[in-house]
Order: sequence, then C-alpha cells, then structure tokens
Amino acid sequence: MPAKTAITPTREEDYPEWYQQVVKAADLAENSDVRGCMVIKPWGYAIWENIQRRLDAMFKQTGHENAYFPLFIPMSFLEKEAQHVEGFAKECAVVTHHRLEPDGKGGLQPAPAAKLEEPLVVRPTSETIIGATFARWVQSYRDLPILINQWANVVRWELRTRMFLRTAEFLWQEGHTVHATAEEALRETRQMLDVYAEFAEGAIAMPVIKGEKTAGERFPGAVSTFSIEAMMQDRKALQAGTSHYLGQNFAKAQEIKFQNESGAQEYAFTTSWGVSTRLVGGLIMTHADDDGLVLPAKLAPAHIVIMPIAKSDDERGVVMEYCEALRTELANQQYDGEPIRVRIDGRDSRDRKWQWIKRGVPIRLEIGPRDIAEGTLMPARRDSAERPAKLPREQFVAGAAKLLADIQQSLFDRAAKLREASTVRIDSLAEFERYFTPQNADAPEIHGGLAYSHFVDSPDMHEKLKELKATIRCVPIDADEEPGRCIFTGQPSTKRGVFAKAY
Amino acid sequence: MPAKTAITPTREEDYPEWYQQVVKAADLAENSDVRGCMVIKPWGYAIWENIQRRLDAMFKQTGHENAYFPLFIPMSFLEKEAQHVEGFAKECAVVTHHRLEPDGKGGLQPAPAAKLEEPLVVRPTSETIIGATFARWVQSYRDLPILINQWANVVRWELRTRMFLRTAEFLWQEGHTVHATAEEALRETRQMLDVYAEFAEGAIAMPVIKGEKTAGERFPGAVSTFSIEAMMQDRKALQAGTSHYLGQNFAKAQEIKFQNESGAQEYAFTTSWGVSTRLVGGLIMTHADDDGLVLPAKLAPAHIVIMPIAKSDDERGVVMEYCEALRTELANQQYDGEPIRVRIDGRDSRDRKWQWIKRGVPIRLEIGPRDIAEGTLMPARRDSAERPAKLPREQFVAGAAKLLADIQQSLFDRAAKLREASTVRIDSLAEFERYFTPQNADAPEIHGGLAYSHFVDSPDMHEKLKELKATIRCVPIDADEEPGRCIFTGQPSTKRGVFAKAY
Repeated sequence: MPAKTAITPTREEDYPEWYQQVVKAADLAENSDVRGCMVIKPWGYAIWENIQRRLDAMFKQTGHENAYFPLFIPMSFLEKEAQHVEGFAKECAVVTHHRLEPDGKGGLQPAPAAKLEEPLVVRPTSETIIGATFARWVQSYRDLPILINQWANVVRWELRTRMFLRTAEFLWQEGHTVHATAEEALRETRQMLDVYAEFAEGAIAMPVIKGEKTAGERFPGAVSTFSIEAMMQDRKALQAGTSHYLGQNFAKAQEIKFQNESGAQEYAFTTSWGVSTRLVGGLIMTHADDDGLVLPAKLAPAHIVIMPIAKSDDERGVVMEYCEALRTELANQQYDGEPIRVRIDGRDSRDRKWQWIKRGVPIRLEIGPRDIAEGTLMPARRDSAERPAKLPREQFVAGAAKLLADIQQSLFDRAAKLREASTVRIDSLAEFERYFTPQNADAPEIHGGLAYSHFVDSPDMHEKLKELKATIRCVPIDADEEPGRCIFTGQPSTKRGVFAKAY
Repeated sequence: MPAKTAITPTREEDYPEWYQQVVKAADLAENSDVRGCMVIKPWGYAIWENIQRRLDAMFKQTGHENAYFPLFIPMSFLEKEAQHVEGFAKECAVVTHHRLEPDGKGGLQPAPAAKLEEPLVVRPTSETIIGATFARWVQSYRDLPILINQWANVVRWELRTRMFLRTAEFLWQEGHTVHATAEEALRETRQMLDVYAEFAEGAIAMPVIKGEKTAGERFPGAVSTFSIEAMMQDRKALQAGTSHYLGQNFAKAQEIKFQNESGAQEYAFTTSWGVSTRLVGGLIMTHADDDGLVLPAKLAPAHIVIMPIAKSDDERGVVMEYCEALRTELANQQYDGEPIRVRIDGRDSRDRKWQWIKRGVPIRLEIGPRDIAEGTLMPARRDSAERPAKLPREQFVAGAAKLLADIQQSLFDRAAKLREASTVRIDSLAEFERYFTPQNADAPEIHGGLAYSHFVDSPDMHEKLKELKATIRCVPIDADEEPGRCIFTGQPSTKRGVFAKAY
C-alpha cells in the first residue's frame, strides 16, 4: 500500500490532474466565472509579485525603463500586420461596441447605436501599438536606443486552458527596444535571454536550456527567436521565456526611422522579449511533490511559518510571546538581500500544518512549552522528508539564512538531476520513436524527456513529430558544432536540436 | 512685459492648455492611437510606480493582500447589477467576438462565426466579478474578514478625456473587503479613507478634505461614499480617492453569505475603495508652475540631477569622475527610508537644464572645474526661484536628506496656503452666486475656490448648482455641528458642505 499523500492523485497516477490539485491545495488560483480566465489568489499572486520585483530590478539594472501603453489595438494595426506577417494570430477578444442598453426583455444588449467605427482588439501582445508610438519617439540616432518594458495583462482566446500555463487572460511583461544597428539589437536580444536564464535558474531554481527556435517556431515577423526551455517532472518541456530579434521587419511596417550620423534616413532594428505568469506554472511543475507545492526560498511569500502549540489560554500567552520574539529575531536576519519573511499561524486548527506543507513554505516551526523550556527548535524542511533534528534556538536563528540558501540550492540540484537523468542523445529514428512512445500504460503522461538529435528542418521531420506528438524545442546556443546526419532524412547536419513533448 | 516662462501658455493665460503643455514638457504622457487612451511615458510611469510602491506598503501594513481577477465581466453580471442599482453606468467597452478573419476586401473583420454567446464587458470596476468570487470563498465567520486589493487597468468609455484626469483606460487599485458586521465594515471604509488622506498629504504633499458624499454623489449601490477632495491651482476641486461602505447591498445581489457563530446564515458587509493614475493629475495641478512640473521629493523618480560641465575632453574626464563619486556619496544617504535617487546627465546639450526643470526634479547641481577646485556646490531648488547659495560639498551631502524634506514640506505648505486663501464660508445665495461666477474675463478658468455653506440636499440646490456649474464635494468628516440655514432653501441645517467647481 502506498504512503498516504496530501495530493490525490499523485504525479504517477495522473500528472495533469495532480497539477490542478496542487494549484487548488496551495491556494494559488481558481477558475473564474469568465471562460478561460483565472482568479489569482493571494498566495499565488504573492509569488508573482516576488517574480515581478526581482525581474523588474534586473531590467532596470540593464538600463530599461517601464512605461504603459493602451490595452486596445485598432483593427487596422492588425490588418497591416496581417499583410506582412505570415501566421498572424487572430484568436483574440474583439471590442465592437461602447455601450450597453436595456434590450427590452429585462436584460442588456450592446447598443446598436454605439457600434465602434473600427473594432478594437484587446492586446494579445503590443508590438504594433508600441511600434506606432516608437515611430513618433524616434527621429535621430540621438534618440536611440529606446529600452522600454511594460508590465501588463494580455488576452489570447485559447480553447483549452490550464491555470498559469495557458489562460485566455494572463499577466506578463513585454520588453520592446529600438536600436541603430543590427549588432546592438541582437546583443540586446541575447542579453535579455541571459537575464531570463539567470532568473529561471537563480530564483525559480529551474534549470533551463538557452536556445534558438527553428523557423517554424519563430514569433511571426521575427528574424530569430530565442527561448529558455525547462523540463517539468513529467519530462515535458516548458517554454518559459522568449526573446525576439525582429530585424527591420517591424520598423518597416511601422515606419520606425531615424536620421543617422551622416544625415541619411534608416529603418531601426527592434527587439521584443517576454515572460508571464506561466513561470508560476513552471515553478509548480518543477518542484511540487505529492504533498503539494514546494517553494524555492527566493520566491516564497513566507520563508518560515511558526505554529505555536498551547493547551490552555495561559500557555497560549507565553508561547505566543515567545513566537513573536522569535519572529522579530528572524526578521532581523537577511536572506538574499531582504529580511527573512516569517508568518505566525496562531489558529487553533488541526489542518494548519498540512496547509503550510501544501502551500510549500520552505521551513516550518511548531513551538510548544517544552521547546521553550529546552530552548530548542525542530525546523522542518519542506524539501526533505527527513525527521527534523532538534537544535538550540540561537543556532537556528544564526543559521536560518544559510538554511534557506541550502533549500534553494537543493531544489535546483534535484531538478537538474532529474533533467540529467531524462536527457539522451539519439541517433536513430527507431530509437527516437521508442523514446517518445509511452512505455508504461499506468502513467502515459510521464515518459520521454529531452532528446538531443541531429536534424534538418524539413516537412518529413514535422510530419514525424506530429505523429509522435513531439516538438523541436530549440537549438542550444552553447552547443559545439558536431558533424552528423539528420535522423529524419539522413541529410548532413552540424548541430543537434533538443526534442521533447511540450506544454 | 511678463518674464519668459518655459511653459506657454501660463496658468493665468489658459489653465487647461497649460496643463496639457506641462504633461508634454515633463514627458509624462501622450495621446495614443486609440481614442481616449494615453501612453504613460517612462517619467510619468516612474511617478506612478512610486505611488504604487508606497500605497501598496500601506495596504499591506493594514492587513490587505493583493490578488488578481479577470479583466472581463459577463454581461449577465451587469444585468443583475442594473436591476438593483440605480444610475448603472453603461458606457463601457463591449467584447462581442473572439476572432478576426479576412473580410474579403483586403482587410479584417470580427468573424461572424465567432460571436460570443454572451458579450463580455471590460471591467469598469470589479465589484461584481470579485463579489461572485467572494461568494465562493466565504462560508463561515471564520473566513472573515477578507481583505483584498487589486492593481489593475479599467476602462470607462469617456467622451471628453484629459490625460491622467479622465481617460478611457486608466490604472488603479481597487480594494474589496468582506466583514461579519456593519461596524467592522464601516471601520474599514474609514480606515482606508485615512490611508488615502495620509498618502495624499504625506507623499503627494497635496492637502485634502476627508468627507462624506451626499446621496446623489454616492457610488451606485453604496450605503455611504467617502472621498478625499483636493483643490487645484485653478481653484477647482479634484476628487482624489473614494472609499465606499456597501452595507449588505452587494452581498445580497451576489449571495455573499456566511454562517455566524450561532450557526445562522447571514449576509456579509462589504466595502470597496480606490485611487487611480488620476493622482498624477492631482500632483501636477497642485504643484506645477509656469516652468513645468514640480515634484514632491517623496515621489520624484530622481531626487537630484547632476549636470557635469566641461569644455574639453580632458576636463570632461575629471568632472565626470567627480560627479560619479558625488553620486555614490549621495546615494549612500537615506531620505524617507530609501537611498537618495541621483541621476547624472552627461549629455552635451544646451537644453538639458531646462529639461530637468520642466520635469520637476527637486534639486539640480551643475558642476564644473571651478566648483571642483573650490570644493563647493550650488544646489538649485525646483520649488524656489531664489538664486542658489554656494556651500561646501560636505555640507551639501550631509544636509541633502534634510533639504529634500524641506522641499517636500514647502510644497505642502504652499498648497495649503493657497487652499486657505481660497476657502470661504458663505451664508447667502447672492454671495454664493458671485463666488462661482468668473470675475476676470482674462482668466475665466481661475476663480472661486472652496465654499463652506449650510445646505439641505434638494432639487432647488441641484438646479442652482447646475446653473453655476458648481458641485457639492462632500460634508467634511471632522466638521463640528453648527446650526444654520440652507442657503438654497432656507431650511434649517446642522452642517456645512464644501462646494466647488470640480474636475
């Protein structure tokens, strides 16, 4: 009989359903009354706030400023894009009226007299509207570079949604920059990819591969698209952030021109890059276990939760006072450049311990009169099933930041180890097919991993990938050139791509 | 001949146009390609970020947590509201389709096959969608209170827009709370009004009156609406924040019920409260002058701007190094709990000084070889036209935080003085009429102020106010009871209201 877990089903039993149950048990989000849109609950939103705060500081350190652009995009902007961009995404929320009025049957209706002359689209991304603004801002080479970021909500009408991973509305940041030269724009594109990778690995403790997308996977209109790709516990890949070098394509469509130093008019070079609330989904699927969420310390809304234990009101007063003092002492310690975040949960509830386990708080402390008398604590680590060891209070306080750093590192190491164990080099199509075919009927969702194979981008490859429900994720940036043959066509190839099933 | 000013026209010449020109000259915002929507430029957005960061900390200190709710509201939610709320606002952006497709004439159109079964409205405010969520969250008195805030964009289809003051889309925060008792909900409503007043006066340096709105000015569905009201330099009032006690009205419409301690089902009591990017408009119109923006130190994106002056490349190297060292030294000083924010503007531009004046930076330092040789600085205050005095560098550095605090206080004092000088008690209708009728044909926009008068809410009063284009702002909370007679009807009254022209 398997050990009882806080989450039912377990990852092995039903991975997709396990994910939904973790989101629910950790109080991260829930479905709303609007199709495909979620409510991000306080615990989930606090994680997003921590992500935002850290990323925002990294953007500012690299010279970017925040600004805000309209939620709506005139349809004519997309018509222009539809003409020059193949693969134009058109599933979006279309605003056609600006008033509701009684429909005469006790309800409301869009007022026919208030039909917009030109429909507006709720931004799915803002290249067009921001580009139109940049065309006004850029006159001379002296105005360049323009380095802008926007924190915003965007909407893409998705048919199949999953909380954090794919929702109709989601929160994100979108960077948009303009440069005088191709080299500078490409450097920016790669710089922001590096920022994303550093954040993913350093803060989310989620190992990622930095790579370039193949032609078919590029952002429509981009010259090249780079991404960071992570591997989830079901061995599927998650695209966790993208950075696009747009060349002069958007500048030409939007007339972003500047006078160069010799007085001639030139089209500028642009980039765009973004990450979204999808990162929270990546965090969950990288670290959560069959007892719920497991939070990397750097992004945890609370680092430590203290649960006072008392049998009488008298006892409660003493224990509470002790816990408050301990909190203050801990909050005076710094972890990761900020005060350690401590919560006291004084509720008289049998469920509270398991609530904090399911919510993934890195360290739990249950404190009763005996602990106080002995001057000891038994810190329980969320990332370890080992029985907590007793240690003197002073020792715990002095070592708390170090303990959090250990937890952060152990999560990264564990994820890196799983990825390592699930990464293969494959040099034959037969092996490739076997790799991406479920071998265990009991857990059809968990199989495969990352396959590094030689390839040449071709219809044959895409057909085979479609058949296997696998995808090419990227060509890793740091891969050495290596002669080989495409496993799909036998053609010569110099680099391996990373293949995986994917979200 | 008047002294030349950086902004044309001056406040006296054309106040509304002066406002637009300050917004433009300070690089705060500009109109976008979408009707009624603005682009908030980096300098303007940085002010908003400072507002956000400080308010967010105040909300968290008072026990609130952030969350995020859908951008869209199903039309049926508003139908329910339309039934129980008089004065239902229906000018809003209505989403009717979820796809664009080619229209066969080279353009796009909302796809007829992708018409939504139920139209969605872009949130003008979120009481309905958040209330529906709260109905799921609240079961028992143990779940209460619920103290939630959301930072979000909202859309109201406005016919006449003005940047920051009234735009179709704007950014705001909306607090939504649920309580077990009326007393607690009312206490929350008043607490948040106090938070707003403290922020407006302490951070924006904008004096406000805390008051209660009369019935006709209440938020539709509220039992009582409180607001903070500020006076702009054209003597008009600006409603700068509102806090609503909603009683059980919304709880009943949305079925927010809880089991009380004795096991019975009760409707909960709710509140909502919000401030928006309008605060930036209030900041501008409170402090800006005929040379552009004047920033209160606490919200300034840069506290000090350093402008190196050098005639040769050799000189430039030395001066630049000196300025960098000075920046570091200043940034090691704390003002208002944060490092002093310093920018160096090394551009070789004749306009740069005036650019920073127009952008309102509290302190400017021009530094050349002679200043370095002498070891002195000449700090220019944006809030004062006095010629800067020379002082030793160490003295300036040591006193910089104090100087910023002085500037913050001087702006508040100046605004308070103008309000004081423009506040009258009026006890006759004739005087009231004269007060709200322009006396100076050259500056028809600048006249009147705040009139404290006895009143009884009545059709007579509203007719007269409409005629004079004046409004009742609020009944001040801290006003003493005082017997008197309504100036419109002669009926007995116990309290004065504040009357003013208003934005």
